[in-house]
This record gives sequence, C-alpha cells and structure tokens, in this order.
Amino acid sequence: MKELIEAIQNRGVGIGRDVVKVDSFLNHRIDVALATRIGQEIAAAFKDDGVECILTVEASGIAVALTTAQALGNIPVVFAKKGDPRNVSADVYTAQVYSFTHQTSSTIRVDRSYITEGMRVLIVDDFLANGEAIDGLMSILRQARAELVGAAVCVEKGFQEGGKRLRAQGVRVLSLATVDAIRDGQIILRPEEPRA
Amino acid sequence: MKELIEAIQNRGVGIGRDVVKVDSFLNHRIDVALATRIGQEIAAAFKDDGVECILTVEASGIAVALTTAQALGNIPVVFAKKGDPRNVSADVYTAQVYSFTHQTSSTIRVDRSYITEGMRVLIVDDFLANGEAIDGLMSILRQARAELVGAAVCVEKGFQEGGKRLRAQGVRVLSLATVDAIRDGQIILRPEEPRA
Repeated sequence: MKELIEAIQNRGVGIGRDVVKVDSFLNHRIDVALATRIGQEIAAAFKDDGVECILTVEASGIAVALTTAQALGNIPVVFAKKGDPRNVSADVYTAQVYSFTHQTSSTIRVDRSYITEGMRVLIVDDFLANGEAIDGLMSILRQARAELVGAAVCVEKGFQEGGKRLRAQGVRVLSLATVDAIRDGQIILRPEEPRA
Repeated sequence: MKELIEAIQNRGVGIGRDVVKVDSFLNHRIDVALATRIGQEIAAAFKDDGVECILTVEASGIAVALTTAQALGNIPVVFAKKGDPRNVSADVYTAQVYSFTHQTSSTIRVDRSYITEGMRVLIVDDFLANGEAIDGLMSILRQARAELVGAAVCVEKGFQEGGKRLRAQGVRVLSLATVDAIRDGQIILRPEEPRA
C-alpha cells in the first residue's frame, strides 16, 4: 500500500537489525487519515469474503481493526485482552502468546459469547513478525469453531518467519507493507506487488 | 447520548454496587456503528474549540478516541502506553495511575515529541469513575505545557467522585451517559439533559 510504504520510509525508524519503529503514525501516535485508509485497503481485499467479525489483540491492533470494520459496513470488532483477568468473564477462550519485543509470555482472552461457531472472522493486526499473536488468535478461533477468513497486517517483517509459516499452513495473509531488512538504521521495504 | 444510553440499558450488565459491564459493545467487543456515532457526538461538542490532538490511554479508550479524531477532521490520536517500557523511547512523560478495577498502580508513558507546548488537547476515554486515568493524562499535559480543552467520556459513574472533582477543578467534562447507581443488577441511568 503506497501511502503506508511512504509513511514507513519517511517516518519510520529502523533500530538494530530487527526493530521497525512506527510509533509516530501507527502504534503510539496514530495518523488517523492513514489508519482510515489502511482499513479501506484491507476491506477492499476481503470485501467478497463474507467477513462477519474482525478479531485483533489489544492495544495497537485496535485502531486498524476498527477502520477495517467501518469499511466492511460496521461489522463488530473483538479485541482479545491481555493481562489481569479481574474484569473479564470466567467464560473465556484463552491462548498463550510469547512476545519477542517484550520477551514475556502472556495470556490473551476472548469472551466465549463474542466468537461463535461458524462465524467468518478476519484477523487484523499492526505487525506480523514471528506470528505469535496471530497464532494465539487462530487458536481462539479453533476453540470457538469459527472460520478464519484470513489475516491482514499493516507491516510484515519479511525477514522473520511468521508470514512464511502462516502461508505454508494455507492461511491467506495480506501485508500492506513488507520490510525485508534493516541496515544501518535504514528500513529496506519490498517493492509493492501488483495485486491479483 | 440516546443510542449509548439505550445500549447500556439493553446490553450493559450491572454487577454488585459499582461495576458497569459494557464488554459486549464498548470495551471488548466493539459495536462499530455506535463507536462511530460516539465519536461524532464528542466531536460536535468540541468542534469550535480548536482541538489539535486527542489523548487517551490504551487499550479501551483507543476506539472512541479514533472515531472522535475522524469526526474532527482526522486530527492525530496519541495513546498513553502502559506496562513494559522496552519498546518505548526513554524520552517520555510519565504518570502514575491507580486502577480500582485491577487494584494496581501502573505507569503510563507518552513520548515527549507527540504532545508539544501549547497544543490544544482533548482527552477521550471510555469510563470516568474515580478519575485516576484522566488525572494521569492531565499530569502529562501539564508536563508538556499543552493546553487541556476538556475531557470526554462515554460512561461516567456518577456515584464515584472523579467527575465532581474534575469539574470542581474547572475541567470541562462531557459524559455521554451517566450511571447514578447499580441496584440488584440494574443499571440506573441519569436522564439525558438537553445540551446548551
């Protein structure tokens, strides 16, 4: 997606060999026009797939999940919760997610009443690196016997294994921008492929 | 706000004397049409105030912050981060926030470059109870010498002290729905006042 690739080039920061910092427009400060456009782009790719619900995980997936849901005709968004379950119903699906960024494992939870059997669900998130968050969300969908339509992410780290592994499993993965490498602080982006 | 009051009446769950559960449409599963309408309603109230930025705190404030920002012409949203600071710049404003729900104190952080001196900022959040989250966000605005335009929340717990205390300090507080009490699982909502 042209605008996102330009934003990463102009406003993203590469750190070390594997950190892509997009805090200034995607996951701390949100460029709202860009987030809205991202939602429209994801929605356009899945518009004929009968998506009934968007599933993401708090916190930084929420903005683009919401704009995608708006563009798909205001279907509901469910965001999996992390952390303390005090205010979460006991009747939940859970999955373990390991975060490379934070080097911690955490439990994500989704109330069982919000994802139901046969529901056609699109996973949306900001990043795809090793794919643990999406694995966790897919585990919740399997527990609910819901149907995974695909997974759409803003930024895929092409040099990590998540995207490759998910595609090998037959998951339809849409990445709006793919980072191939980070060298000397420069973010090397894969040229955009014309979409089929 | 009529639609929100109806949603709380029809879909909210009152627990004990002080828990208002709106998980099914506001802060776990999001009713996207309602969230979009909430943003329009908040924006309408602050449309002449030159708001330049929306400030909220992750996670459940993000959706309504985003829809408010859309309705104010795609101004930026900044969400304060909680938890592990590993992936957050060291150059941050911080504040302590005590959560009654989780009975824990946590540090929230905002990168200094996103809130600047003189910036006119509207705080948006899902809930106002004792007001600790808004206190924390206001502390960050003071540190940044930014200008607080007001605070807009979806649900105010009128039986807790936050709203009263903030208004006594001269803060312009907009609550789209006010819960006056919870009795036998029933949520007692304050009748909507005609707006000046």
